[in-house]
Amino acid sequence: MQRFKAYVEANRERFIEELSDLCRQPSISTQNVGIAEMAELVKAHFERLGAQVQVLQTGGPPAIFAETGQGERTLLCYNHYDVQPPDPLEEWHSPPFEPIIREGKLYARGVADNKGDLMARIQAVEAYLAVFGELPLRLRFFVEGEEETGSPHLAALAEQYADLLRADGCLWETGGKDEGERPTFHLGLKGDQYLELRCRGARSDLHSANAGLVPNPAWRLVWALSTMKDMQDRITIDGYREHVRPPTDEELAALERIPFADQAMRQAWGIDRFINGVEGTEALRVFLYEPTCTISGFRSGYIEEGSKTVLPSTAMVKLDLRLVPDLTPELALRLVREHLDRRGFQDIEVVSLGSLPAARSPLDAEIVEAAKAAAVAVYGHEPVIYPTHGGSGPMYYICQGLGTPGVMTGVGYPGINIHAPNENIRLSDYFEGILFVGELLRRFGGEEGI
Amino acid sequence: MQRFKAYVEANRERFIEELSDLCRQPSISTQNVGIAEMAELVKAHFERLGAQVQVLQTGGPPAIFAETGQGERTLLCYNHYDVQPPDPLEEWHSPPFEPIIREGKLYARGVADNKGDLMARIQAVEAYLAVFGELPLRLRFFVEGEEETGSPHLAALAEQYADLLRADGCLWETGGKDEGERPTFHLGLKGDQYLELRCRGARSDLHSANAGLVPNPAWRLVWALSTMKDMQDRITIDGYREHVRPPTDEELAALERIPFADQAMRQAWGIDRFINGVEGTEALRVFLYEPTCTISGFRSGYIEEGSKTVLPSTAMVKLDLRLVPDLTPELALRLVREHLDRRGFQDIEVVSLGSLPAARSPLDAEIVEAAKAAAVAVYGHEPVIYPTHGGSGPMYYICQGLGTPGVMTGVGYPGINIHAPNENIRLSDYFEGILFVGELLRRFGGEEGI
Repeated sequence: MQRFKAYVEANRERFIEELSDLCRQPSISTQNVGIAEMAELVKAHFERLGAQVQVLQTGGPPAIFAETGQGERTLLCYNHYDVQPPDPLEEWHSPPFEPIIREGKLYARGVADNKGDLMARIQAVEAYLAVFGELPLRLRFFVEGEEETGSPHLAALAEQYADLLRADGCLWETGGKDEGERPTFHLGLKGDQYLELRCRGARSDLHSANAGLVPNPAWRLVWALSTMKDMQDRITIDGYREHVRPPTDEELAALERIPFADQAMRQAWGIDRFINGVEGTEALRVFLYEPTCTISGFRSGYIEEGSKTVLPSTAMVKLDLRLVPDLTPELALRLVREHLDRRGFQDIEVVSLGSLPAARSPLDAEIVEAAKAAAVAVYGHEPVIYPTHGGSGPMYYICQGLGTPGVMTGVGYPGINIHAPNENIRLSDYFEGILFVGELLRRFGGEEGI
Repeated sequence: MQRFKAYVEANRERFIEELSDLCRQPSISTQNVGIAEMAELVKAHFERLGAQVQVLQTGGPPAIFAETGQGERTLLCYNHYDVQPPDPLEEWHSPPFEPIIREGKLYARGVADNKGDLMARIQAVEAYLAVFGELPLRLRFFVEGEEETGSPHLAALAEQYADLLRADGCLWETGGKDEGERPTFHLGLKGDQYLELRCRGARSDLHSANAGLVPNPAWRLVWALSTMKDMQDRITIDGYREHVRPPTDEELAALERIPFADQAMRQAWGIDRFINGVEGTEALRVFLYEPTCTISGFRSGYIEEGSKTVLPSTAMVKLDLRLVPDLTPELALRLVREHLDRRGFQDIEVVSLGSLPAARSPLDAEIVEAAKAAAVAVYGHEPVIYPTHGGSGPMYYICQGLGTPGVMTGVGYPGINIHAPNENIRLSDYFEGILFVGELLRRFGGEEGI
């Protein structure tokens, strides 16, 4: 531990400079800006570690695969090298691709999401090799370049390169400390099925005087939706709830250990109570274990100021379905379609605009145990373990889909401003993150701590 | 009849010129263009008839009141001198304020809606006086200048000048021949209560991952709406249907006599069937006698291309309620509010954006009888009598509100293009319209026909 720490300390300025170099290179996947250059930079860093590197072509931005080390166990690190566009530029206090340190924080687009996570892992390997000579396990990196556009090729890549990617544990991206400065891990993500429901009436908008005769697609969607979730917010799609696994006793106990600031959330959001008045652990259970059925958008007819007596000819709803592990995107889509058909809503078109399966790792997976032990060693106390996350991401393809348990972890804190102006990380978190990865390599590799 | 007709024939060119002059003067109330000039023109025409003229100030465009003639009965003519804006200009074949005759039609903005109706009435009075020396009744004109902006001062004017405006019968504006060249009268209009329902959730839009906890205003509106009309299109607002008067046997018989081209309507609108499969007279009954509850607009959340995983903080519905006589706008608004409150939707704000009471005249009113007789005399066959209209207008304030039965009549035909480019009337309809007004003055005045 001391030697590893001393190495990191000794190389502090260079490490910051390497991270800054990575952030200086724009890599905006949505706009195809700097992608090739960034892929080269990442590749060069892995080659400098002595890793075997492969560039995996996807049709979009290439993914970089690297492997180094030997051992009984295999650890996979998932990261991405692309970033969000920096807009709105005028809200940045300094140019987004000119990294700058202010008050102990490094500001740059992508530094938190997730070039900082990636570089901390690379530098931890460098330090480990410098101090101990070799890694205690087989270490693989998979760094994609299109996470910010929804990882469109990830499922196919995971299938094609399953043997390269399969591992005994995975460090996923994103994480860090919570409001109470507690290191926090999430062991899964919800799935998602994002639907558009479309309905048509007459050939064109008509005068609303004809409303007694001509079907109104907005009413059709209202009626259809009203059969899918009741006023108590219970999803009533036929057969849906059968696929919702209740939390185990161990999971419920884990929820009890999570400091969940539900009152602060309500205050921040300006609401008096959560749906059905849930609070505390019960609110957390709903947040993590219940699927959702959200109207994310509804458009029909005249929507500007004032009145227009129109009978709309089209109506559209965006429906965001957050999914739990047994409720796959394919199953959710089929249940919705059958539910609507059974009620005479064959005229409503259901189109999937994107989907992700849910991911959830066992609380007692070895990678989780190793991460907990490493956190205690580095941060001095137990981490907060979320059995899963309320949000969604493509973890399933790389983790559960290949039989690999995964842990979300990173060098963030609540003020990182990801996907927003003035994205930043705290340098103290960054260097602790390097120590954490070093500890985790050692422990997951079966050693006793650095 | 022959002498009246001969007078009109002899003055044909001047009559067209007078109408053209009226159309040459723009009078766009929405844009306050040419209103004062137009009011002066109208006033001058009435003065030339020897009428007593009053300019009624409203705060907006003034209304012109004129009275002439003596007799037991009083007839009121309602018209308006303002017109719709002419946009889109590029779709006009000739400039909208440069009246031009092509193939027997006079093209100009406002010629159908409703300077043609107004001028035909004025010229009928001129002809009547020239041929018979005096009118057989007391004739009053009320010509407002803000019908195209929703007649915002009409209710107040009608109350203030009730004694001036009260009459034994009223000729309302708008009407003419139907697709089968049959003269057509409507004896009423539906009312309207145009509502905006607004709902708020969190302080700002949130990530949809929070949807299990944070109330979604779009769902709130969907649930509320689903209690207001069922899937069979029956309005289920508490207490609403009690105020829907079924048609009398006489009214049903009148419906049977109306040639209602429901199949052609379905074809034009591109729909296979009307709601609940209604056809023919039953469809007409629904169209004329049933109130409606129409979603004219629905907006919430993300409504552009693609997906955005957002939990909306606001949702808004435009609800157009077409009303029947006993269901006043005030009553409809109160029933909606109470219905929502009773179901726990106190959080939904209900705002009226405008309202009109329904108007309906008895089928056997003397003004209706006179209009029928005049139509037979001029057009050679029975007119088509609609007991009411599916659309709405401010007739109530001037007619039923003052105890005056009214008939909608005018010089139009199905191709007049009102509120659209290339507005026009057929000159043959115009001159028949003058004869019709002459016949009607005579008959409603108690004489035996001209």
